[in-house]
Amino acid sequence: MSKPEQAAFPDTICAVSWQDGGIKMLDQRLLPARERYLQLDTAPGVADAIREMAIRGAPAIGIAAAYGVVLAARKAYQRAGGEWRTEIEPCLQQLVSARPTAVNLEWAIERMRRVFPRIEDNPENSLLHEAQAIHEEDRAANRRMGALGAGIIKDTRSVLTHCNTGSLATGGYGTALGVIRTAFANHTLAMVYASETRPWLQGARLTVWELAREKIPVTLIADSAVGYLMRTGRLGWVIVGADRIAANGDVANKIGTYSHAVNARHHGIGFMVVAPLSSIDPTTLSGDDIPIEQRPSSELIYFAGDTVTPFTVNACNPVFDITPAGLIDVIVTEKGVVHDPDEKKIMGLLED
Amino acid sequence: MSKPEQAAFPDTICAVSWQDGGIKMLDQRLLPARERYLQLDTAPGVADAIREMAIRGAPAIGIAAAYGVVLAARKAYQRAGGEWRTEIEPCLQQLVSARPTAVNLEWAIERMRRVFPRIEDNPENSLLHEAQAIHEEDRAANRRMGALGAGIIKDTRSVLTHCNTGSLATGGYGTALGVIRTAFANHTLAMVYASETRPWLQGARLTVWELAREKIPVTLIADSAVGYLMRTGRLGWVIVGADRIAANGDVANKIGTYSHAVNARHHGIGFMVVAPLSSIDPTTLSGDDIPIEQRPSSELIYFAGDTVTPFTVNACNPVFDITPAGLIDVIVTEKGVVHDPDEKKIMGLLED
Repeated sequence: MSKPEQAAFPDTICAVSWQDGGIKMLDQRLLPARERYLQLDTAPGVADAIREMAIRGAPAIGIAAAYGVVLAARKAYQRAGGEWRTEIEPCLQQLVSARPTAVNLEWAIERMRRVFPRIEDNPENSLLHEAQAIHEEDRAANRRMGALGAGIIKDTRSVLTHCNTGSLATGGYGTALGVIRTAFANHTLAMVYASETRPWLQGARLTVWELAREKIPVTLIADSAVGYLMRTGRLGWVIVGADRIAANGDVANKIGTYSHAVNARHHGIGFMVVAPLSSIDPTTLSGDDIPIEQRPSSELIYFAGDTVTPFTVNACNPVFDITPAGLIDVIVTEKGVVHDPDEKKIMGLLED
Repeated sequence: MSKPEQAAFPDTICAVSWQDGGIKMLDQRLLPARERYLQLDTAPGVADAIREMAIRGAPAIGIAAAYGVVLAARKAYQRAGGEWRTEIEPCLQQLVSARPTAVNLEWAIERMRRVFPRIEDNPENSLLHEAQAIHEEDRAANRRMGALGAGIIKDTRSVLTHCNTGSLATGGYGTALGVIRTAFANHTLAMVYASETRPWLQGARLTVWELAREKIPVTLIADSAVGYLMRTGRLGWVIVGADRIAANGDVANKIGTYSHAVNARHHGIGFMVVAPLSSIDPTTLSGDDIPIEQRPSSELIYFAGDTVTPFTVNACNPVFDITPAGLIDVIVTEKGVVHDPDEKKIMGLLED
């Protein structure tokens, strides 16, 4: 098999790829201190890696799950031969339920499943071909979104991004971070503010690391200081990704996105969501219908192995929130741009 | 000397007190892991402790500085006898400039200075008497503000507070946390949400610890999840302290306060500031004139000795922000309550 991602985008790191008959995955929990790769050979191992956040980012976990289906099919075929389609089901369920909020996980597995009927014998090669197509299409979509988004922010000098939406969160290049990369390459962007993104610090750990590697100027800021930053008048746009976009244009994304959106509207600052069509879920009518993952209190109680608060405390730890369509100025997809999103415009994107 | 704080408020801890001829100060940098007390015998030592945040919280650093003036006067009198008023000046400058945003530091030192003219010989006893009066008056003010504020929030079931404004931040009992303590004692408050308060985590480390000690129900939440929490409809009020209140009612307080205020207004949730008159600075016309302390990038880069982000990154680390009067529903002081604050109402508070 060819490895197109390495030829096409030599500058960006690869969160997940197919290698040596299995999945090579960068363990993002250890970044930026260590670059350690996991080699995964079973679908349950992939589900664990997704649940425990060795890989995160809606498009990236979709791609990892697609490769996971290949591993599941291999094992099912070894065990059950022609009955592999039945044998594989528990593994598919395990993959799809690894995390609840990002729809890309379900989307990728459904797309893999649509290949099943036309497979005649050993499913591995056909499914690997499809998984690699999903991966490759995601990278191409990111390039396209980068160009579209950069065209909108024009000569904005400074933008804010939240969480990590770069090569680490996608098949490569990034969604919101793809727009930022393109704008920087076009010399229309001078500074990226990265908000820390508690509790996992994806902004501090991953976005700063990705941008610094490419010498894109980045300034780290606490999530709570974003209002202050906006009040200084330095920001032109807030640019974020999405874990799921409902039919009405409401967006689920990393916790903190909604606060940033409320602040952006208060200060008259543009708010842009960048996400591939695979993040749109037409069966979810509004944000109220999107399941919000609650993670353990321990993520707020422990830091680098130390307790920062009495360990018996209760914590409220939702890791996503919903930004209503009314607070979003523009959604950028690979198929085009939607200003002031609503159900009609979102559903229009999905028509051929 | 008597120790009135221990008799009057046996339930609350004491951030700073006069003991054995010097200052006993709880080192808040180590909480909640360790309760270690510093014994300080020199004014430069007190200035260092304030600058390096062994003690923090606007009223508490004012009280610490007042006791610091006693130590400075002792040393100046030993060195220069009757010329102690000249000898003491460098130490007073060092104390007043230890941190720039909280006006209580300057206020306390000015109040101590007003005693100087009527001192005839050794200044220590007269100044200690004044410092203890400042301390005692702050505690009494907190009790009064607690009653006034609790009367306003009435039967609100859940409130949010930011940073730490309790016994650790004041002479005892607390400002915003004093209102919360009183409301809980009155059985009108069921749950306190404490936002983490990056980067120093005063909410996670100090507020949770204080409330848990008194068995007041508390839930920890990331700063960035406050918008989410508000959208659930669970919150009745946001209650915070102040480091400085300008003549027009603009409030400088811990970074993140402003974002919470913007979100509170967006969701129609009440926003209350609780601060003693010593936090009002009539010579500062508006928030634009309040100096905002910027602290080192390292506070965002390191956590518990580990780097969380590439250590060469720039960080924007303002540790206070300005909430304009227009976003504040009520300011509670020991002299009374101001709804919809403006210059006329604020200046009215300061009249006899």
